[in-house]
Amino acid sequence: MEEILAPLRQAVREQGDLVRELREKGASEQEVSKAAAELKARKKTLEAKELALQPKDDTVDRVKMEDTLKRRFFYDQAFAIYGGVSGLYDFGPVGCALKNNILQVWRQHFIQEEQILEIDCTMLTPEPVLKTSGHVDKFADYMVKDDKTGECYRADHLLKAHLKKLMSEEKCSAEKMTEMEGVITQMDNYAQRELADLFVKYNVKSPATGNDLTPPSSFNLMFQTSIGPGGNMPGYLRPETAQGMFLNFKRLLEFNQGKLPFAAAQIGNSFRNEISPRSGLIRVREFTMAEIEHFVDPNEKVHPKFSSVADLEIMLFSSKAQTSGQSAQLMRLGDAVEQGVINNSVLGYFIGRIYLYLIKVGLSKDKVRFRQHMENEMAHYACDCWDAESKTSYGWIEIVGCADRSCYDLSCHSRATKVPLVAEKMLKEPKTVNVVQFEPNKGAIGMAYKKDAKLALEYLALCDECYISDQEKLLSETGEFSFETEGKTFKLTKDMVSVKRFQKTLHVEEIIPNVIEPSFGIGRIMYSIYEHSFHIREGDEQRTYFSFPATVAPYKCSILPLSQNQEFVQFILQLAEAMTRNGVSYKVDDSSGSIGRRYARSDEIGVAFGITIDFDTVNKTPHTATLRDRDSMKQIRAEVMELPDIVRDLANGTLKWADVESKFPLFEGQETSKKE
Amino acid sequence: MEEILAPLRQAVREQGDLVRELREKGASEQEVSKAAAELKARKKTLEAKELALQPKDDTVDRVKMEDTLKRRFFYDQAFAIYGGVSGLYDFGPVGCALKNNILQVWRQHFIQEEQILEIDCTMLTPEPVLKTSGHVDKFADYMVKDDKTGECYRADHLLKAHLKKLMSEEKCSAEKMTEMEGVITQMDNYAQRELADLFVKYNVKSPATGNDLTPPSSFNLMFQTSIGPGGNMPGYLRPETAQGMFLNFKRLLEFNQGKLPFAAAQIGNSFRNEISPRSGLIRVREFTMAEIEHFVDPNEKVHPKFSSVADLEIMLFSSKAQTSGQSAQLMRLGDAVEQGVINNSVLGYFIGRIYLYLIKVGLSKDKVRFRQHMENEMAHYACDCWDAESKTSYGWIEIVGCADRSCYDLSCHSRATKVPLVAEKMLKEPKTVNVVQFEPNKGAIGMAYKKDAKLALEYLALCDECYISDQEKLLSETGEFSFETEGKTFKLTKDMVSVKRFQKTLHVEEIIPNVIEPSFGIGRIMYSIYEHSFHIREGDEQRTYFSFPATVAPYKCSILPLSQNQEFVQFILQLAEAMTRNGVSYKVDDSSGSIGRRYARSDEIGVAFGITIDFDTVNKTPHTATLRDRDSMKQIRAEVMELPDIVRDLANGTLKWADVESKFPLFEGQETSKKE
Repeated sequence: MEEILAPLRQAVREQGDLVRELREKGASEQEVSKAAAELKARKKTLEAKELALQPKDDTVDRVKMEDTLKRRFFYDQAFAIYGGVSGLYDFGPVGCALKNNILQVWRQHFIQEEQILEIDCTMLTPEPVLKTSGHVDKFADYMVKDDKTGECYRADHLLKAHLKKLMSEEKCSAEKMTEMEGVITQMDNYAQRELADLFVKYNVKSPATGNDLTPPSSFNLMFQTSIGPGGNMPGYLRPETAQGMFLNFKRLLEFNQGKLPFAAAQIGNSFRNEISPRSGLIRVREFTMAEIEHFVDPNEKVHPKFSSVADLEIMLFSSKAQTSGQSAQLMRLGDAVEQGVINNSVLGYFIGRIYLYLIKVGLSKDKVRFRQHMENEMAHYACDCWDAESKTSYGWIEIVGCADRSCYDLSCHSRATKVPLVAEKMLKEPKTVNVVQFEPNKGAIGMAYKKDAKLALEYLALCDECYISDQEKLLSETGEFSFETEGKTFKLTKDMVSVKRFQKTLHVEEIIPNVIEPSFGIGRIMYSIYEHSFHIREGDEQRTYFSFPATVAPYKCSILPLSQNQEFVQFILQLAEAMTRNGVSYKVDDSSGSIGRRYARSDEIGVAFGITIDFDTVNKTPHTATLRDRDSMKQIRAEVMELPDIVRDLANGTLKWADVESKFPLFEGQETSKKE
Repeated sequence: MEEILAPLRQAVREQGDLVRELREKGASEQEVSKAAAELKARKKTLEAKELALQPKDDTVDRVKMEDTLKRRFFYDQAFAIYGGVSGLYDFGPVGCALKNNILQVWRQHFIQEEQILEIDCTMLTPEPVLKTSGHVDKFADYMVKDDKTGECYRADHLLKAHLKKLMSEEKCSAEKMTEMEGVITQMDNYAQRELADLFVKYNVKSPATGNDLTPPSSFNLMFQTSIGPGGNMPGYLRPETAQGMFLNFKRLLEFNQGKLPFAAAQIGNSFRNEISPRSGLIRVREFTMAEIEHFVDPNEKVHPKFSSVADLEIMLFSSKAQTSGQSAQLMRLGDAVEQGVINNSVLGYFIGRIYLYLIKVGLSKDKVRFRQHMENEMAHYACDCWDAESKTSYGWIEIVGCADRSCYDLSCHSRATKVPLVAEKMLKEPKTVNVVQFEPNKGAIGMAYKKDAKLALEYLALCDECYISDQEKLLSETGEFSFETEGKTFKLTKDMVSVKRFQKTLHVEEIIPNVIEPSFGIGRIMYSIYEHSFHIREGDEQRTYFSFPATVAPYKCSILPLSQNQEFVQFILQLAEAMTRNGVSYKVDDSSGSIGRRYARSDEIGVAFGITIDFDTVNKTPHTATLRDRDSMKQIRAEVMELPDIVRDLANGTLKWADVESKFPLFEGQETSKKE
C-alpha cells in the first residue's frame, strides 16, 4: 500500500516545499494562493487513494443504513407530503431521542464539568451585528441561473462537473486535459469576473435544460427577514450561535464577578441558505450547533487542568504533516503541546476534551482525527485552528472546529458599538504608563460644527496613540487634519485641538480577552455516530443494528412480553413505572411478532437492552425475567424488580455488561425457539 | 368585598343571558358578536375589580423583581450594545439553566411518563403549509403608520389609548363617553373599513409626532423569508410547532405500528412578528413552546388513566360561570368530566397532568386556574378548549392552551395534499357499506383533456358521496357538470362519467383521528415562576430570594469556603467532583465577601442549598460541613462526602428538607457572625 502512495506523498511534499519557499521569498499573494490550491488538490488525491486502499470491511453499507434510518423514522425529509424541501429534515422519535441524549451528555461533559456559563440567545439577528462580524459581506457563494427556468446552481460545482464531463470525452487532448485540471485545482481562488470568463470559455449551459446561464453572481447564504412591521430593520437568521456570546460578554464577565478566564456556551439552531444542498445530513439549511467561547487573558494561555488530558494518544494531522505528504500520526497530547505542534495548552485541553466527548457518544477511536488548518486556510486573525474530523463514507468530514480566534471578535464589536469589551486585571504592582490624548478645545469645535461637535469629540476620545501621533505631525506641518465618523467629515485646525502627553499610575490593566472557540456541528456528529455504529449481524444480511453506547441510545431498554397473554401485563406496568422513576427511557413492544423478530426490531433502532417477560416470570417465585445485551445478544436472568436499577446503572455507565454477566446466571435459548 | 362585586356580577349575568337569548332566537352573527363583546368587557371589569380587591401582600414587587432579574442576568434585552431590539431577549446563565430544567421536567412528566413520541422539525416552513393552516390569510393584526417617520402602531392599541385620553378630558360629555366606551368594547369586532372610519372620526394622529397616520392595513405576523436562491419558494418562520406533527402523522402512526391512540410532542422555538411588543417576557417575537398532539379515535375519547387525576381539586372557570358573573370554582376533576363541564376524559386527563406539571415547576396552587373558552372565543372546529392561566402582576395570563381540535388539522392537510391522513381500525365484525363512486370513461376524458386528464381523474377519485349525488343530479338534468382543480376548469358530459353504486364488506375502517392539543408557552411559564416565587426576607427589604423548587432551581447547590484560606481548596475540589458525578449543578463562590453576604447572593438567584466549608471542616475528623436550606435558612452539619448524595436526593425530590433536618444535627450561628 505504501508503495502505491509513495509517489503521491512525494508530489505533496514537493508542492508543500514550493509554497513554503514562495512565502519565504515574499512572493505575491496570488502566486502563493495558486500554489497552495495545487497543494490542496494533491493532498486530496493522496487522501482519496488512502481511503480507497483501506480494507473493505471498514466501509459502511450506506444504502442499507439509510434505508433503516428512513424506514424507522430516525429522520426524513421535511414537508414530504407537500413535495419536500431540500436541505430540511425532521427528526423522528428515535433521531430526536438520540439528539437529546447527545446534547445532554454535552451539557454534562462541558457545561457541568467545566462550570461553563450557558446562555440562550435569539436566532433573529439585526443586520448591524452581522455586518460587523463580516457575514453580510462575506458569507456568500457564487451562483448561476438558468436563463429561462430560473433554476439556480452553485457556480463552482457546476463548472467542475462540466469540466469533468469534457475531460472524460475521448476527443479531449492531453493539453486541454491539463488546462482543465488546472482550473479545477484553482476553483476556490477565482474572483467573480474570472469565473464569469470561464463559464463563457467552456460554454457551460444549464445541465437540466441546455438553456443559457446568467453570469455568476454572489449569493449571501443567510436567510433574510424583516424585524417589526416598518420594513426598516432588516435582520437575518443567525449563521452561527457565537455572536450572541460576544454581544453578552460584559454581562457574562460581571456574572463571573469580573474574573478571567471563563467560558460561555450556547446550544441552538443556526441557518445557512445553501444554493443546492446535497449529501443528506452533512449539508443542511437548518442545523443544531453547540459552541463554547472560552475567554482568556492572552498572557495566560495555560490551562490548569491540561495534565488531566496530557496522556491521551490522539490522531493528529498537523499542518506540517499535511504539507509534506505524511499521514496523520497518533501523538500524546502532552508532547504535541510541548513540541509546539499545538499552539498552547488551552487549545490542547479543549482538543483532549472534544476527543473524549466524541468517543463517549459513540464515534470510533480509529475514525476520529484532528486536522490543523494550514496557513492559507486560517482566518487572518486566528493563531491556530484544529478541526475534529470523522471518517465516513463521504470521506473525512469536519464535525468540530476548535480555533484560537485571538481578540478578533470582541475588538470588532467594540469598535462598531463604541462599548469597551474588556476585562480589568489587577496589577500585582502599580505600573506607570505614558498617556497620549487629544486635548480638544470644545468651544472652538462647537462653534465650527454645532450639533455635530459631539460626534467629533466622541471620535477624538477613542483614538489610539499611533493615530494621534500621525495626526499631530499633520497638525504641525499643515495646520490641520481631517477625519470621517458616522458619515460626517470633520476638518480640525490647531486652535481646535492639541495633543497632551502625561504619565499615569495604573493599578488595573484593561485587557481584551482572547477567545478559544470549540464549535460542534451536532447533525454531523449524529451522522458520524450512525455510520460508526451501524452493523450487520454475522450470517444474516437482513438483521442490522446500531451499537450506540447505552448513554446515548435513544431508548435504554425494550420491555417485551413473550406473548399477548394477559398475565404478563402487570409485570409490564411494574417495570414501566420503575423505569420512569429511574428516568430510564423504555419502549414496550407487545405486538404479536415472535420474540426473535421483536429483538431484531429493537436492535434495528439501537435499543441498548431488552427485558423479556416469559412464563417463568409468571409461574415461579421469586419472579425473574431475562435481560439481553444488544451487541453481544447474551442474556442473563434476574429478579424482575432488580432490573430497572441494573438498566439505569448500565445507562449511566456506572455498570458494565461484563459485570452483569459475571453476577447473574446466563440464560439461553428463548430468543429463537421458545414460544408459547 | 362581595358587596362591591355583586353589581358587577349582576351586570355580567344579565349580558350573558342576553347573548344566550340572542343565540337561541337565531339572531344575526353581527348582533351576537356585538353582545358577546360587551359581555367580555363586563367580565374584564369584574375581574379587574376582583384583582384590585385582593390583599396587598399577595402582589409581587415587580420593579424590585425585575431589577434582580436584570442585574443577575436571568435575562435581558438582546443586542443591547447595538441599541437593542424590542421583543427579543437573551437568557443568561441563571435563566438558561432554569429553562433547561423546566424543559427537562416537562420531558419526564409528559414524554417519558406518557410514552409520547418526541420529534424535532424545522422552523423554516414553506408557504403552502401555512396557507393550508390558515396562517397566511388570518394570522394578522391591523396597523397604522406615521405618514412621515414610518413608525408603526397596532391600530387597536392606538385607538384605545386615544379614546381613553379623550374620555379623561374634562370637556368630554357623558354622551360622548358612552359612545367611546362602546367603541372600546367592540374593538375586536371591527373590520378594516370600520376601523379606518373610526380613525378619521376621532382624528387619531401619531402619538410621537402628531403627524397624520396611514389608514389601518392588515399586517401578517409571520416572519417571511425565501428558501433557496431562486426567490421562488417563499417561506416563514413557524408561528407554532404543531404543524410539523400533523405533517409527520403518517410516519408517526407507522412508528406506533398503526395503533391509536398515540401522542407526538415537540419542543422548539416559534416566531411572531409583533407590531409593537410590550410587557417583557409575556409578549415576545421569538419564544420556546412545548406542544403535544394526542391523536385519538373520535369514538373512543376515554382516557384509561383518567382515574389517576380524577381526585385533583382544580380551580375551574367554566364558560357558564363566566357568562353568569361567578368566580372560578375549586372542583374535583372527576366531577367536572362527569357533569360535562369538561367535554371528555381525554381532555380532563390532560388538564390534570398540566396542573400537576405547573405545580411541580413552582407555580402557586392558588394562582393557577383553568378557564374554558366561551363559545364565541373558540375556533369553529374546536369542540372544547381550556386555558391554564396564571395570576401575575399583569393580571391572569394564558400560559398553556388545551384544546380539543377535532379532526380539523389532519383534514385540512389531507385535502390540500391529497395524501390521506387516516388510521385504519380493525372492525370487530365485518361491516357492509354502500359505496358511491364516479365511474370515469378514461378514454373520453383523455380525448377531451389530453395531459390534464390525469388531474380530472384524481379529482373524481377523491369526491365524497354527498358531492357525487349532487353532480349526478346535474348530469341527469343538464347533461354535464363542471369543477375546477389545480387552477384548471373541467366540464364533464354524460359520455365521460357515470356514477356507480355498490356494496362493500369492510374489515377495517378508515378514521381521521381527533386531536387533543396541550400547548405550553415556556417563556410565560418561566415568568410566572419568577413572580410566584419571588420573596423578600422578613425584616430586610434588601434581601430577596426566589423559592424555586429544587428540581428546577438553576443551581442545586452553592459551595462556599468560609474564607480564601488555601486549606479549604481540597474540600471544594472533592465536593465539585462528586457533584459532577451525581449530575448536580453547583456554583462555587470563593469571593471575599462575608459568608452572610454570599448566602444572600446565592439566595438572590434561587440556588436551592448551600454547603459551607469552615475551620471545623478542616480541623476535625470526620470532616464535616454545613448544609443550608434556602427557604428556611436552617442549617445542618454532616460529613462532607455524604453531602453530594443528600443534595442529589433533595434535587430529585426523593428526599425532603424535613427528613434532612430530623436526621442530622442542626447548626447555628455561622451565617452572620462567624468569621475567620
